[in-house]
Amino acid sequence: MGKRLIVIGGVAAGMSAAAKAKRTQRDMEVLACEKGSFISYAACGMPYFLAGEIADHRELIVRTPEQMVKQGIDVRLRQEVMAIDAEAQTVTVRDHDRGRDLSLAYDNLVIATGARPAWPSQEGSDLDGLFGLRSLESGLALHSFLVQHKPMKAVIVGGGYVGLEMAETFRRLGLQVTMIIRSGKVLRATVDDDIRKLVQAELDLHGVEVVQDVPIAFEGERKLEAAVTAGGRHPCDIAMMGMGAVPNVKIALQAGVLLGPSGAIATDASMRTNLPGVFAAGDCAEAFHLVTGKPAYIPLGSTANKQGRVAGENAAGGQAVFGGVVGTMVLRCFGLTVATTGLTAAGARDAGFQVQETIIRAKHISHYFPGAEDIHVKLVADSGTGKLLGGQIAGKHGVAKRIDVLATALFNGMTVAQLRQLDLSYAPPFAPVWDPILVAANVADK
Amino acid sequence: MGKRLIVIGGVAAGMSAAAKAKRTQRDMEVLACEKGSFISYAACGMPYFLAGEIADHRELIVRTPEQMVKQGIDVRLRQEVMAIDAEAQTVTVRDHDRGRDLSLAYDNLVIATGARPAWPSQEGSDLDGLFGLRSLESGLALHSFLVQHKPMKAVIVGGGYVGLEMAETFRRLGLQVTMIIRSGKVLRATVDDDIRKLVQAELDLHGVEVVQDVPIAFEGERKLEAAVTAGGRHPCDIAMMGMGAVPNVKIALQAGVLLGPSGAIATDASMRTNLPGVFAAGDCAEAFHLVTGKPAYIPLGSTANKQGRVAGENAAGGQAVFGGVVGTMVLRCFGLTVATTGLTAAGARDAGFQVQETIIRAKHISHYFPGAEDIHVKLVADSGTGKLLGGQIAGKHGVAKRIDVLATALFNGMTVAQLRQLDLSYAPPFAPVWDPILVAANVADK
Repeated sequence: MGKRLIVIGGVAAGMSAAAKAKRTQRDMEVLACEKGSFISYAACGMPYFLAGEIADHRELIVRTPEQMVKQGIDVRLRQEVMAIDAEAQTVTVRDHDRGRDLSLAYDNLVIATGARPAWPSQEGSDLDGLFGLRSLESGLALHSFLVQHKPMKAVIVGGGYVGLEMAETFRRLGLQVTMIIRSGKVLRATVDDDIRKLVQAELDLHGVEVVQDVPIAFEGERKLEAAVTAGGRHPCDIAMMGMGAVPNVKIALQAGVLLGPSGAIATDASMRTNLPGVFAAGDCAEAFHLVTGKPAYIPLGSTANKQGRVAGENAAGGQAVFGGVVGTMVLRCFGLTVATTGLTAAGARDAGFQVQETIIRAKHISHYFPGAEDIHVKLVADSGTGKLLGGQIAGKHGVAKRIDVLATALFNGMTVAQLRQLDLSYAPPFAPVWDPILVAANVADK
Repeated sequence: MGKRLIVIGGVAAGMSAAAKAKRTQRDMEVLACEKGSFISYAACGMPYFLAGEIADHRELIVRTPEQMVKQGIDVRLRQEVMAIDAEAQTVTVRDHDRGRDLSLAYDNLVIATGARPAWPSQEGSDLDGLFGLRSLESGLALHSFLVQHKPMKAVIVGGGYVGLEMAETFRRLGLQVTMIIRSGKVLRATVDDDIRKLVQAELDLHGVEVVQDVPIAFEGERKLEAAVTAGGRHPCDIAMMGMGAVPNVKIALQAGVLLGPSGAIATDASMRTNLPGVFAAGDCAEAFHLVTGKPAYIPLGSTANKQGRVAGENAAGGQAVFGGVVGTMVLRCFGLTVATTGLTAAGARDAGFQVQETIIRAKHISHYFPGAEDIHVKLVADSGTGKLLGGQIAGKHGVAKRIDVLATALFNGMTVAQLRQLDLSYAPPFAPVWDPILVAANVADK
């Protein structure tokens, strides 16, 4: 019998780790404990499921427990790891179905406990009608509430990408939507003001109200009736928390796993924690940011899958390396796509860079071709060296995979002078002869 | 008075050079001679104009002579440079309107004479009804013929991208279309067989007949009636030459300008030819290929614009550098987009590489998202080092700007192991959590 790997958490990072470990070392015993009832699902698809764009939540499930078992992985649902004893190399698992705890020994451990929505501490935050969106369970609960209670007025607290996606979902479902954001700025940390105003205009166009205010309490008799803020009172019958994610690190921390500056689990490039044989991956862990050269907490499904795979391979004796992130993100906001990679100008200044900002507007395909639409490209560069630090793109079309050119440029440490030399694809239905990225680079390199 | 720059040719490279030279050095006298009646047009848009997707050919004109004159550039239409005297630093210009030759002195010269369609030498190749497509004039002539003669059956000789674009145009206009290709292979040099079969299937689906055959003659009484091949006789009332482009180098060659191995003008990275003060740019010139490390002849509008700009800046005393090409190309073939960058597997073998080929099929966006379509990604890598040598992508959607990630990777000399680390954008409406490029890189890096 081979060694035993226990994976804590059965979603993106956890199941990637389990599957990769088993593929890497066939005789390894791989056991995955998931506290919830679902594994390996695409959490990012939930806003579209809730909006009715995706008919059935089961379409979001990538691999079923049965499929994992066929691959030789022992998947245990509703079994929650309550504690890790790193010295004894055991975990205490609570079996929620049978109502008992058991102790399991491991040789290697992958912590993939994910994250939860940041939750307000204000009065009334336990009322019915307040929702976060992270696990499939939370999505199904929200779906049930929408179907049963047919809410009319939604408040979204915070302006991150989940909040924005849910603003669109609610509007599609016919609800009134008010976003209450402390800074008043949607996507505060991910885009600069010039790109943000395009997002804000799209929200205005689609009747999403954004107010700069601070929530004080949630009111209601068991069921939510209003969000009270410093500036007023917002009647509502549903509220979404969109203030970002908090890594689930309690059991790791209690076991002596070190956290990084962000409060998520610190790892090296092999996804090892400070404890021997203990790996971490996904939304509970940090990632090395290639632009700042420092760890960052940017919990995204794409990163979780990559990290999980590396952790699983290495837990099975492999030599995989996670190459780090550059902070690439894309978001559909009604008819607008907004994407970002690397640092914003504001973020770059905070990180100590001397910043040069360039923003251009161009057509996403040849201007004379039917359907040509405006696209805005922003480049953030180090003003001394010309090194690209980040980029933001917004437009109706042609945004998502264009940001990937900038992400690839960041990965390679390109300067704007090099960027303008790129041999990018050109044909009138797909791009102007000077791709908007090259237009921006030409301006930035002046 | 400043020095005088003469630019030979007024389309993409020529007008880019003229405009950039003037912007670089305000007091330079910039004179552009164009043998035709149009300048600065998007030749690549012509198949779509001919198909009726673009209503007016004037939409293809980027800058009018009046706009250029306003920028202080002396644009001379229907003035053809017949000879260059490099020693005397003069050009002989034929004024086709006035029917006279004049001699003009220059300090610096940019040769941007473009290319012409390769033309068969067979009997009957001068009949009415045979067309190439390169200049706007040739597009307008073809347009007139289509309107006046309403042809029913088209033969396309050759299977390059102009031939394919015109196959689609003709089918949209209701013509029967037969492509006669010596190798029987569309896009023979630009894609491998596995991707080609997807293109071929799309042609089959849309009723384009492809025959492997060799044209022997064109028959007809003044007007074309049939293409005669080794294998048979193809009645037709219009024929397109789609066998690629031939650089216009006659006057350059006569003046002592050296050509490269491809037969196009050789330049260095500053777009200088072997003659002092004489630059070349665009479809008459070679470009340095970053993957092979050798000059290549890949005449495309995107490259012409970049080279023209560099030539113009340097002709005005600047220090610009053209960074080379990686051979990126994208093409709409009915409902399929096909794109390529770098070397094909066949081309890489010819260039002496030990080749590893990977091809994967994935969905272009999350599989559960409405509208998800198959996309094929092929990677060509050096089997020893893992260095990426090229890529090809085909699919209904999400192809064009994905190839740019591979083009950027090639520019940076990335390996497939590095490629799989890329932090590419992910959101269900735009990409799967593992972007198809990463899926391909994961497989290639095994």
